[in-house]
Amino acid sequence: MRVLLATNNAGKLREAREILPEVEWLSLADLPPLPAAIEDGTSFEENARKKALHYGPLVGLPTVGEDSGLCVDALGGRPGVLSARYGGDVLDGERCRLLLAELEGVPEEQRAASFRCCAALVVAGEVRAISHGEVRGRILLEPAGSHGFGYDPVFLYPPLGRSFAALTLAEKNAVSHRRRALQGLLPHLRKP
Amino acid sequence: MRVLLATNNAGKLREAREILPEVEWLSLADLPPLPAAIEDGTSFEENARKKALHYGPLVGLPTVGEDSGLCVDALGGRPGVLSARYGGDVLDGERCRLLLAELEGVPEEQRAASFRCCAALVVAGEVRAISHGEVRGRILLEPAGSHGFGYDPVFLYPPLGRSFAALTLAEKNAVSHRRRALQGLLPHLRKP
Repeated sequence: MRVLLATNNAGKLREAREILPEVEWLSLADLPPLPAAIEDGTSFEENARKKALHYGPLVGLPTVGEDSGLCVDALGGRPGVLSARYGGDVLDGERCRLLLAELEGVPEEQRAASFRCCAALVVAGEVRAISHGEVRGRILLEPAGSHGFGYDPVFLYPPLGRSFAALTLAEKNAVSHRRRALQGLLPHLRKP
Repeated sequence: MRVLLATNNAGKLREAREILPEVEWLSLADLPPLPAAIEDGTSFEENARKKALHYGPLVGLPTVGEDSGLCVDALGGRPGVLSARYGGDVLDGERCRLLLAELEGVPEEQRAASFRCCAALVVAGEVRAISHGEVRGRILLEPAGSHGFGYDPVFLYPPLGRSFAALTLAEKNAVSHRRRALQGLLPHLRKP
């Protein structure tokens, strides 16, 4: 089944292709430019819905909107839904440095955090399914690893003792918040 | 996995047990009396969420809230979210008769309708997944069949040429709106 993943993020597309290889994923980068969705929701779910409901009818394909971010306990869940805009218009590496600066002096045992993801599937203009995924971990004292994207270098995944950016794509995709969210849509993405 | 299906409806429980036998389903009838959820939502999804978010934390189990109903095209989607209250405090048979009376004179080709269902899964106080299911059919001129419940006797399922109430439970559960909705939750109900 051909499904639009409503993102321009090549990292997310690569992950979706590995997580659900039974789906023929397209991304916004594969299409002519479209008016952008307004992502002003106050939760991952709200933004995921907005993206899917915006692009699905424009493209005429089953469409998955996805929103995700990092929620740090010591920051009351920030940057959360603003993860991709934290620090303004800067690169991922700079965002990681800003986060580490904000957590300076916070001891290891108080650096717990979650990666969260919500995926929304829209078919024929209607939300068909919503799926949330979460993975718990800890913010490192320094970035580590060179894979992945976003906050992966500063997120320690305790069961493997390495940051998300130090895992292979396959290792990350076996346990990630995005995997848990996307996999929840699978019954709706199989041919009936 | 033990999961609460937040309903007192024995018909829905029976269907859930047959649709997802890998889950150990309980219903509200298996528990001491609890304060009732307020089902004042304006959509199936809103009511499904309300039920799951109300009962889940009270019971301390993963909880599925479910709301479903019949949407008749010629009635602008009514009775819809009010399906279970259509006609007031009457039995299923009376509700079916009221619906047939309201559709009197409407010819067959204008009697299209959908059964719709939304299921919401709450774990640890948070919505984990939402899944919608729909099946298209037609309102019969007279009730037929003795299985099922609710509006099943007046809902013709065209691919089998019989009403939902004239199907066996297994036949209905293979194609129903409730199956499509509940099955969408399955990845979240399997042990990780």
